[in-house]
Amino acid sequence: MLHLSMPLPEWARTSVGNSGIFAGDAEKMAFAISLARSNVEEGTGGPFGAAIFNRESGELVSVGVNLVVAGMNSVLHAEMVAIMAAEAVLGTYTLAVRGRFELFSSCEPCAMCLGGILWSGVERLVCAAAADDARAIGFDEGPVYPESYCYLKERGIEIERGFMREEGKRVLELYRERGGILYNRR
Amino acid sequence: MLHLSMPLPEWARTSVGNSGIFAGDAEKMAFAISLARSNVEEGTGGPFGAAIFNRESGELVSVGVNLVVAGMNSVLHAEMVAIMAAEAVLGTYTLAVRGRFELFSSCEPCAMCLGGILWSGVERLVCAAAADDARAIGFDEGPVYPESYCYLKERGIEIERGFMREEGKRVLELYRERGGILYNRR
Repeated sequence: MLHLSMPLPEWARTSVGNSGIFAGDAEKMAFAISLARSNVEEGTGGPFGAAIFNRESGELVSVGVNLVVAGMNSVLHAEMVAIMAAEAVLGTYTLAVRGRFELFSSCEPCAMCLGGILWSGVERLVCAAAADDARAIGFDEGPVYPESYCYLKERGIEIERGFMREEGKRVLELYRERGGILYNRR
Repeated sequence: MLHLSMPLPEWARTSVGNSGIFAGDAEKMAFAISLARSNVEEGTGGPFGAAIFNRESGELVSVGVNLVVAGMNSVLHAEMVAIMAAEAVLGTYTLAVRGRFELFSSCEPCAMCLGGILWSGVERLVCAAAADDARAIGFDEGPVYPESYCYLKERGIEIERGFMREEGKRVLELYRERGGILYNRR
């Protein structure tokens, strides 16, 4: 058995433990962005946060923050951490069989995460900052095209981009101001 | 600390333990395809295998087989397992800082894995079966376009596709003949 550690920081575990039911999109996105902001402020990783919610109850299912550097693992983007954690909690390789789930991300997903979202079984994706905002501070987002989003939509995934974009973008700018490292660029 | 299990089957661990230095592309790809074939024959997962080698020494660094169903985790495609295992072994979030590495895959990567390869730090990707071969037996490969491959090449990743394609394709056909499940389609 190979074991992989996803070293979710102490502040994130506390944050999750204290959360409950989330009422609407703005509250859910504010939470995802707060994860990204805390990850920068606490110096625990990249400026990205994500959370998966039960779409019907508003219940928080899992959180993700960027753990690439802390986990020494290039796969551990915020969205991927949230997806793997949700599937582990619910004991399934597709969330679709456990109910209706939505993923909120503080920034549009990179190519890997967009593909990962397709396989995860979430039925809705909401993003704050744009991929261009991430590129503006020096991150590479990989091969994502307008057709990539169409591909997911055609397979039944609802997608909203640019929701609370300015708030998401401010976290990226904070990361740049603090001289955060730009891991895994090519 | 979140822990994630990657339940590499017993036969795969034995197979890795018995391997040593690999001499050339054909030997490396035959090994990756043998992982895919064993995963089907042993009933331990989907028809996909991958392996990462040190490009200069020919040493095997890590293996991956599809563990989506066994690991209850939609991220655990063969390439992603190989990438995460290699990074764990070498203690880094980018293989590029540890030497020159290449990834051999029994089939062209899905959208998630292609993005993951970009971030992994491998400098060469060699694939056997085509995405069309995977689609022909019912798998979805996600939003991968000709530009996606160009994107990786422009960032310095060498890519060879269709190397020993027929051998890779035969494993996919074996999976269909055995009635293997088509997880995570949408």
